[in-house]
Amino acid sequence: MYQPQYNYGMIGLGTMGCNLVLNMCDHGYSIAGYDKDEKKVTQLLALGEDKKIGGFTDIALFVAALESPKVVMLLVPAGVIVDAVLSDLMPFLKANDVVVDCGNSHFTDTQRRILTLANDGIHFMGLGVSGGETGARFGPSIMPGGNVTAYNKIAPMLQAIAAKVDGGEACTAYMGQGAAGHYVKMVHNGIEYANMQMLAEAYHLLKIYAKQSNVQIHSIFNNWNKGRLQSYLVEISAAIFLQKDDLADGMLIDGIKDTAKQKGTGAWMSQDAMAIGAAIPAIDAAVCARILSSLKIERVAAANLFKNDEEIQVCKDVDTFITLLEEALYAAFILTYAQGLSMLQKASDTYKYEINIATVASIWRGGCIIRAAMLNDIMKAYTDEPKLINMLTSLTFKDVVNSCTASLRKVVLLAVKSGTPVPSFCNNLQYFDSYKSAWLPANLVQAQRDFFGAHTYERLDIEGIFHTKWGE
Amino acid sequence: MYQPQYNYGMIGLGTMGCNLVLNMCDHGYSIAGYDKDEKKVTQLLALGEDKKIGGFTDIALFVAALESPKVVMLLVPAGVIVDAVLSDLMPFLKANDVVVDCGNSHFTDTQRRILTLANDGIHFMGLGVSGGETGARFGPSIMPGGNVTAYNKIAPMLQAIAAKVDGGEACTAYMGQGAAGHYVKMVHNGIEYANMQMLAEAYHLLKIYAKQSNVQIHSIFNNWNKGRLQSYLVEISAAIFLQKDDLADGMLIDGIKDTAKQKGTGAWMSQDAMAIGAAIPAIDAAVCARILSSLKIERVAAANLFKNDEEIQVCKDVDTFITLLEEALYAAFILTYAQGLSMLQKASDTYKYEINIATVASIWRGGCIIRAAMLNDIMKAYTDEPKLINMLTSLTFKDVVNSCTASLRKVVLLAVKSGTPVPSFCNNLQYFDSYKSAWLPANLVQAQRDFFGAHTYERLDIEGIFHTKWGE
Repeated sequence: MYQPQYNYGMIGLGTMGCNLVLNMCDHGYSIAGYDKDEKKVTQLLALGEDKKIGGFTDIALFVAALESPKVVMLLVPAGVIVDAVLSDLMPFLKANDVVVDCGNSHFTDTQRRILTLANDGIHFMGLGVSGGETGARFGPSIMPGGNVTAYNKIAPMLQAIAAKVDGGEACTAYMGQGAAGHYVKMVHNGIEYANMQMLAEAYHLLKIYAKQSNVQIHSIFNNWNKGRLQSYLVEISAAIFLQKDDLADGMLIDGIKDTAKQKGTGAWMSQDAMAIGAAIPAIDAAVCARILSSLKIERVAAANLFKNDEEIQVCKDVDTFITLLEEALYAAFILTYAQGLSMLQKASDTYKYEINIATVASIWRGGCIIRAAMLNDIMKAYTDEPKLINMLTSLTFKDVVNSCTASLRKVVLLAVKSGTPVPSFCNNLQYFDSYKSAWLPANLVQAQRDFFGAHTYERLDIEGIFHTKWGE
Repeated sequence: MYQPQYNYGMIGLGTMGCNLVLNMCDHGYSIAGYDKDEKKVTQLLALGEDKKIGGFTDIALFVAALESPKVVMLLVPAGVIVDAVLSDLMPFLKANDVVVDCGNSHFTDTQRRILTLANDGIHFMGLGVSGGETGARFGPSIMPGGNVTAYNKIAPMLQAIAAKVDGGEACTAYMGQGAAGHYVKMVHNGIEYANMQMLAEAYHLLKIYAKQSNVQIHSIFNNWNKGRLQSYLVEISAAIFLQKDDLADGMLIDGIKDTAKQKGTGAWMSQDAMAIGAAIPAIDAAVCARILSSLKIERVAAANLFKNDEEIQVCKDVDTFITLLEEALYAAFILTYAQGLSMLQKASDTYKYEINIATVASIWRGGCIIRAAMLNDIMKAYTDEPKLINMLTSLTFKDVVNSCTASLRKVVLLAVKSGTPVPSFCNNLQYFDSYKSAWLPANLVQAQRDFFGAHTYERLDIEGIFHTKWGE
C-alpha cells in the first residue's frame, strides 16, 4: 500500500487543474493528482517531473495517498460531473475531510452539496478561481467560502499560491458562509461580461464613427491603460488589435467572426438578480448582446430589410472624441461595479453569506480577469463607509460619477443617433437615470395591477395597503 | 355517501377560482368546489345559489362527488401549495383522471408534476388563465397544454367559458406538449410587464416633458385606444387618469406611491430567456424597472446627490409630440412582441412543445391582459409565414417597423437628453439596432475570451474552430 505522503489531492487534470497543481508545488506543497484519463496524468507528471507530484487513475489509491484529514480539490466541469466525482469519492472519505470545488459551479449546487456532505461530517467548500490558465499557474485571484475551520486549514496554501498586489498582499480571503465563494465568482464573471461588452462598444464607435484603424485603436487602448482605466481587459484588448493574422492578410481581429459565445456564469448572475430583486441591467444587456451576436444569419438578413433612418454621424475631432469616450467608459465601469456590488450585498443579506464587499474588491485587484486600478478606489469606498448601500453615492465616487456620466450621456446620444447598438453603455445610463429619479412613473404600473388584478397599492401620503374599485 | 353528480371539481375558491366556477356554471356545467377554508366554500355557495354547485371542505367527499374519469382543477397559489394539494388529492385519484393546474405555476414545476402523476396514469395539465377577476368570471383567455387526450376531454368546456372575439371565436386552443400552457402564460406575462412599463414611460414623458395634466393624459390615451394602439392596457390606463382620489384632493394616480411590485412571472421569463439563449432586453428592462422603482428611499437620497447634467427639454409642439410618441409606442410594442414570440419559438424548439405562434396570437386577442388590436396583425404575420423566425421581418410588419422606429429613436434621444429614464423604450431600440446590424463588435469579445481562457473563436473566411497564442 501507498504511504500517505501528499498534502493535497487534485481531481481533474485539465489545463486549469494541472496549472494549480504546479503552482501549489512551487510553494512547497506535495500534491496527488487524479484523472480518469491516463494521458492527463502522464502529462502532469512530465510537466512536474522536478516536483513532489503523484499521479493516479485509481481513486482509492489516490485518496489513500493523502495525509489525513484529507483535502481533495476538484477542477472538473461544473454540473453533473461534479456530482459523479463526489459519488466516486465519498466512499473513501470520512468526517473532517475537506472537499474543495475549484470549478465554476452554480452556487445552488454548491449549497446542496455542502448540506449533503455535511451528513457525513465532510466539509464541502465552494472556491472561485479567476485568472485563466496563466493565473492558475502563477497566481490567480481565489475566492473561497464555506466552513471556517476547513477554510483555516487551507488558508496558508491559498495565500501562497494566489496573486500578490501592493508588494505582497495575497489576492485571496475568506468570502463568507455557505456558497459565498462561488457566488462571488459568479458576480465577478457577470461584471467581466459587462466590462468586455463595453470595451466592444467603445471599439465599435472608434472603428465606425471615429474611423480609427486597428493600430490606432491599439494605441488608444494602450493609452487608456496608463490611466484610471488601467485593467487587464483594457491591456489585452490593446494587444489584440496588434495581433497579425497568420491565415490571411491584415490583423487577426478582422478575421474573427462577430459571434460571441458564453459558458453561462454571466447569465446565472442575471437570473439570480431577477430572483433576489437586484437590478443589474448593464450585465443583463451584456448577456443579451452575446445572444444577439450569435444570430449572425438573422442579422445579415435584417440589415438588408431595414433602411437606416438614423443620421450618419461624422467625427470631426477624433482627439476630443477619444477623451469623451474614456470618460464614458470610466462612468460605465463605475456604474457596472455599482450594480454588481449592490447585488452582491443583497445576495449576502438574502443568503446570509456575511460577505464583506471591501474584502471582495481587495482580492479582485490582482490575478483575476477584472483586475483593474479602479478596484483600489472601490476597496477604499467600502472601507471608508462599511454600510454603503450603493457605491455611486460614496464620497470616493460621487463627484466623478457626476462629471463622467455627462460624457456617457453624450456617447449614448451619439450612438443612438447613428444607430450604433450600445446596449451596455445605454443600460448603465438608464440605471443611473432611474437611480437618481426621486419619482418614477411606477404609480401607473401599480394602478394597472390594482385595476386588473386587485394587487393593491401603497400611497405617498398615508401608510397602509389600498385597493380601489376602479371606474366606479 | 354522495352520488357522483358534478362534471368538474375546483380546488381553491379564492376570487379567481370562485369566478371560474361561476363562469363554468353559466355554461351548463355542474361544479364541486373545495377549499380548506369553510368561509370560502360558504361564499361560493352564496354567490352560486341558483347554480349546480356543491361545496366541500373534505377532500374525500369532494372527489367522490365527481363523475369519472374525474377532472379536478386547481386554482391555488403557485409553488409548494400546489404540491401539498396534489399530495392530499392523489390517494383519491386513479388512472385516466385529469388534474388541471390553472394557477401561475412555474413551467419546470409543471413538467415535474406531469412526470410524477404519469406514474399513476393520471394526466396533469398546466393551463394558463389571463384576464384577472373579471376575465375569470365572464371570459378569460385560456392557454392549456399537455396530454392531448386529456385536453380533448375538457376542450368543449374551455371553449364555452373562454372570451370570444370576432363574434364567436373562443380565446382558447391547445398550446402544445408538456408544460406549454404555463410557458405561454409566462410569455404573456413578460410581454405584459414590458407593455405596462412602456405605457408608464409614455406617461412620464407626457407629464414631465409635455406638461400634460392627468385629464389631458386621459384624453391622449383614450384617443390612442381608438387606433392601432387599441388594447386593454391602454384602455384601463385612460380610465386610471380620470379616477378621483377619495382620500385626498385631486386624482388618485398622484396619490399612489411610485414603487411597483411583482409576483415573479416576468422575472421567470427573463430567467428562462437567459437559460435558452433568447434575447428579450425590453422585458428584462421592465423587470429591472420595477426593482429600481422599489428602491424609493435610495432614489430620493441619490436625487439630492447628483446634479442634472442633462439639458432641460421643452416641448414646444405638444400635438406633434403626441403623434411622435404614438408612433414610438407602436414601434416599441411591435419590438416587444417580436422579442417575446421569438423566445416562445425558441422555447418550443428547445422543450419540444410544438407551439404554433399564430394560434397563440389568436387566443391572446381577447380576454387576457395584453389583448390588443395589433394581435390580429401578429396572427396574420405568423399565419401568412408559418416559418417566420422574427416578426419584424414579416411582410406584415417590416414597413411599419421601418417607419415607426424612427419615431422611437427620436423619443429615446429626447428622453436620454433630458435624463428621463426610459429603459423599455431604450432596450427595444437597442434590440432593433443590434438585430439589424450585419456586423457587431463581438469579434473583440471572442478575441478576449480566447486570449484569457483559450475559449477559441470562429473566423469569417474559413470554417472551423481556431485558437491563437496571443502576443507571441
